[in-house]
Amino acid sequence: MTKRVAVIGAGPSGLAQLRAFQSAAAQGAEIPEVVCFEKQSNWGGLWNYTWRTGVDENGEPVHGSMYRYLWSNGPKEGLEFADYSFEEHFGKQIASYPPRAVLFDYIEGRVKKADVRKWIRFSSVIRWVEYDAEKGDFEITVHDMEKDTVYKERFDNVIIASGHFSSPNVPEYPGFAQFNGRIVHAHDFRDAREFEGKDVLVMGSSYSAEDIGSQCWKYGAKSITSCYRSAPMGFNWPDNWEEKPALERVEGKTVYFKDGTTKDVDAIILCTGYKHYFPFLPDDLRLKTANRLATADLYKGVVYTPNPKLFYLGMQDQWFTFNMFDAQAWYVRDIILGRIEVPTNKAVLDADVAERVAREEADDDVKYAIKYQAEYVKELVAETDYPSFDIDGACEAFFEWKKHKAKDIMAFRNNCYKSVITGTMAPVHHTPWKDALDDSMEAYLQN
Amino acid sequence: MTKRVAVIGAGPSGLAQLRAFQSAAAQGAEIPEVVCFEKQSNWGGLWNYTWRTGVDENGEPVHGSMYRYLWSNGPKEGLEFADYSFEEHFGKQIASYPPRAVLFDYIEGRVKKADVRKWIRFSSVIRWVEYDAEKGDFEITVHDMEKDTVYKERFDNVIIASGHFSSPNVPEYPGFAQFNGRIVHAHDFRDAREFEGKDVLVMGSSYSAEDIGSQCWKYGAKSITSCYRSAPMGFNWPDNWEEKPALERVEGKTVYFKDGTTKDVDAIILCTGYKHYFPFLPDDLRLKTANRLATADLYKGVVYTPNPKLFYLGMQDQWFTFNMFDAQAWYVRDIILGRIEVPTNKAVLDADVAERVAREEADDDVKYAIKYQAEYVKELVAETDYPSFDIDGACEAFFEWKKHKAKDIMAFRNNCYKSVITGTMAPVHHTPWKDALDDSMEAYLQN
Ligand SMILES: Cc1cc2nc3c(=O)[nH]c(=O)nc-3n(C[C@H](O)[C@H](O)[C@H](O)COP(=O)(O)OP(=O)(O)OC[C@H]3O[C@@H](n4cnc5c(N)ncnc54)[C@H](O)[C@@H]3O)c2cc1C
Ligand SMILES: Cc1cc2nc3c(=O)[nH]c(=O)nc-3n(C[C@H](O)[C@H](O)[C@H](O)COP(=O)(O)OP(=O)(O)OC[C@H]3O[C@@H](n4cnc5c(N)ncnc54)[C@H](O)[C@@H]3O)c2cc1C
Ligand SMILES: NC(=O)c1ccc[n+]([C@@H]2O[C@H](COP(=O)([O-])OP(=O)(O)OC[C@H]3O[C@@H](n4cnc5c(N)ncnc54)[C@H](OP(=O)(O)O)[C@@H]3O)[C@@H](O)[C@H]2O)c1
Ligand SMILES: NC(=O)c1ccc[n+]([C@@H]2O[C@H](COP(=O)([O-])OP(=O)(O)OC[C@H]3O[C@@H](n4cnc5c(N)ncnc54)[C@H](OP(=O)(O)O)[C@@H]3O)[C@@H](O)[C@H]2O)c1
Repeated sequence: MTKRVAVIGAGPSGLAQLRAFQSAAAQGAEIPEVVCFEKQSNWGGLWNYTWRTGVDENGEPVHGSMYRYLWSNGPKEGLEFADYSFEEHFGKQIASYPPRAVLFDYIEGRVKKADVRKWIRFSSVIRWVEYDAEKGDFEITVHDMEKDTVYKERFDNVIIASGHFSSPNVPEYPGFAQFNGRIVHAHDFRDAREFEGKDVLVMGSSYSAEDIGSQCWKYGAKSITSCYRSAPMGFNWPDNWEEKPALERVEGKTVYFKDGTTKDVDAIILCTGYKHYFPFLPDDLRLKTANRLATADLYKGVVYTPNPKLFYLGMQDQWFTFNMFDAQAWYVRDIILGRIEVPTNKAVLDADVAERVAREEADDDVKYAIKYQAEYVKELVAETDYPSFDIDGACEAFFEWKKHKAKDIMAFRNNCYKSVITGTMAPVHHTPWKDALDDSMEAYLQN
Repeated sequence: MTKRVAVIGAGPSGLAQLRAFQSAAAQGAEIPEVVCFEKQSNWGGLWNYTWRTGVDENGEPVHGSMYRYLWSNGPKEGLEFADYSFEEHFGKQIASYPPRAVLFDYIEGRVKKADVRKWIRFSSVIRWVEYDAEKGDFEITVHDMEKDTVYKERFDNVIIASGHFSSPNVPEYPGFAQFNGRIVHAHDFRDAREFEGKDVLVMGSSYSAEDIGSQCWKYGAKSITSCYRSAPMGFNWPDNWEEKPALERVEGKTVYFKDGTTKDVDAIILCTGYKHYFPFLPDDLRLKTANRLATADLYKGVVYTPNPKLFYLGMQDQWFTFNMFDAQAWYVRDIILGRIEVPTNKAVLDADVAERVAREEADDDVKYAIKYQAEYVKELVAETDYPSFDIDGACEAFFEWKKHKAKDIMAFRNNCYKSVITGTMAPVHHTPWKDALDDSMEAYLQN
């Protein structure tokens, strides 16, 4: 009997998995039956924009955390698919920081070409997964939202690709329950124009704080105040942006910081990160990990050590994204196809995890972290037929990017980098980011 | 072996069920082991206010749909517990439209007195329920959010009291994805002050539209526009409130109505109702019904006809609330205690449902609807030892209320009514509703 493989999620990771199997089949390999379950009505994961917040049209937590006017926050040269270049997709080289719609189109292009949409069941929410130790397989409970029926199916392997930037981490601070403005987590932030003329507080000092604050600034907020718990972002902010230490409490519309200063604000945007969240998994299958480069319990970053028939994709914190998901998906595919062997001794798997953790913790420098993840991608790529590419070159793009941000945070997206896949230089975008208010694909591609 | 009964939800309905069992026990009856599972960290259901929107601290959809400054929208004389009067709780009679905090305190008072908190497992999300036809019992999968562990337990009966005003019905209209302001469903509306000085559109023509629009008006919105799909609310609105026919589309910040008129708005508040939503139930146990007085598939409004070991509380649209939940809870208790027999012939159960549906549909007058539900409450109360009370008297309070609303929608809450439990008249509240900006319990009880 053919093996059956379930993939949970049709975002970049899940789609990478479908493409990995399809590419093996195209080369003549016999592949298992692959069924991908996606709770949204379209593919693309976070890149599939929705205006909805809270719960979706089916009552399920909204998956999307992206907002209008979002542009890539890293150079596209760091995430390019090795088997499908930007030039192949767009018929020309494009600028380096594409808006969401452009990257959505690119992600979709590869899987349309691979013709794998037929493997996906949309509007299908995974409600529960259970491992049957006797039969050695999994039973999956699925809610088909279109028909509003629930059914069960069995699979030999399960690959979890449900993302980990959707379930918001929402801390409570004294006074939140009485704040007289809007409190919203980055996950539910949608349109910066809503904050035009407003005094906005963004809490956090990572990518969301930086980018949502920048969006609000770009679209006319009156002032931005950001506050940090551990360390300031420390960029050269515009005049109406102030960085403050940690929030202490809120009273009416006034926010109080640890240094004794205060500020009156209209909105508090909690850019406080996300949680790994798997409401469909029992204790013996549920990954519990922090958002870091070396996750807990994943051999080679993908094989769940307590049950090696279960795989997780994309669960790491991410410098590399699309190409790392590819490296993982090809690797998992080859385990399932029997081309790669997973040690049967759990101690060996655990030792692999421990080694990765120790190596990550050896240094807290940013360059070290980028190289660390680059090494990981190299390690996996080397073991499969995923096209090898100049991963050190991609690192260089990241190092440049970091410098460009430090130089001018509101202008770093005006820079361009060289593709490590096609070797061509990206063109300079026709409009500086801060003046480009139209983020449509048509506008972006006018070069 | 003692029977085991699971109650899902510790809102007014679930708490009524606990109180029903406790009162039987207090009178010497042998009762089953009752375990109540509540996903929130406190009881009270919708009345347990949260500032959170979207998903809660555990990643689960936020249950709360109530907002700051919410006062009862019907007279408290229509919902008073027959076994625990307002006078018993507050030591005096209080005014007729208490704010949320006051009603929360009242709900809590009865179950504190009954000492049933120990029956409740808080922060416990029901993930799945399954009926085992062989064993004739239910297996429930629970996620204990505090320990972050999942476990299973078996029960002879399951009583679903998870409410049906939490999972928003969120329609999409052309242009929503590009609207340059805020779009929020009533479920996620929290503080009207946020809309001070704003032009607000409320969509819908039922209680949420009326009350959220009124809140925004009270707390200083610049203008309110409400729009209806079927029929206008038709109250005598203040000068800055306009009623419009259905929304057609949105462009930028401009909303277009069916009559060709337009309005520029800052926010769209979707008061478009809720859906019955049971993500933890398979097809054979899941109630599918519209929000109406005669629900589908519930014999006597509580016994699930396809499986009479399963009960639902409070699934009807509601004129009567707390006292109706009581009537249902006492009735369900008596079935479980073997005091009331449910016919074993499914055709008889279905006929009961069909009769209720036909009778509801016989007339669409509001008075008829109120009386219809009053008859239902009477019917159940008559079959148990729940203290009988003057249900026709409660209807009179509702009829008066309707008149008071028609007379002055911004002043109806200044009226008072007579308790059908203690026979005393409620005092006139010390401040007209429109001027009472402080909704705290302390402020309300200063009479
Ligand atoms: C605001 C934001 C901006 C970002 N910007 C960038 C960027 O500029 N560049 C970059 O490279 N990366 C960016 N990222 C990182 C992002 O994580 C990756 O680009 C990528 O989307 C991860 O892919 P994924 O498939 O692992 O997860 P996701 O994209 O999250 O996809 C997971 C899929 O699983 C589905 N799913 C979840 N639960 C279930 C269920 N129970 N049943 C069925 N289906 C389910 C979801 O609907 C979704 O489609 C950003 C992330 C965020 C939050
Ligand atoms: C905005 C608003 C205002 C209202 N105002 C009034 C009013 O003024 N007067 C009035 O009489 N009625 C009012 N109501 C009606 C309201 O429905 C009832 O008063 C009452 O709260 C219903 O009680 P319930 O227990 O059936 O449901 P709920 O109050 O909704 O309680 C259900 C409980 O089940 C829990 N639960 C849900 N799912 C799970 C799960 N999977 N696992 C564990 N626990 C779960 C929830 O956390 C919650 O505590 C209002 C409703 C709304 C939406
Ligand atoms: N394309 C884009 O432009 C874009 C935009 C936004 C996000 N993203 C992506 O989205 C992902 C998530 O980024 P993120 O910034 O949302 O999450 P993140 O990187 O995990 O950062 C979370 C931030 O919240 C802070 N924080 C957490 N808990 C807190 C608390 N209780 N009180 C105060 N502060 C708290 C953390 O502070 P500490 O440092 O003290 O822990 C940290 O600064 C990343 O992959 C990022 O690249 C991309
Ligand atoms: N205490 C308080 O003050 C208070 C405040 C708010 C709510 N509540 C309670 O909350 C409960 C729910 O009330 P609710 O008003 O939220 O819900 P509701 O009574 O179900 O009303 C839903 C409204 O949305 C409209 N609607 C539905 N789908 C629509 C669509 N696709 N497009 C346009 N309009 C659409 C309906 O119009 P149609 O008529 O055309 O179907 C109806 O007017 C009630 O029990 C109420 O008493 C109490």
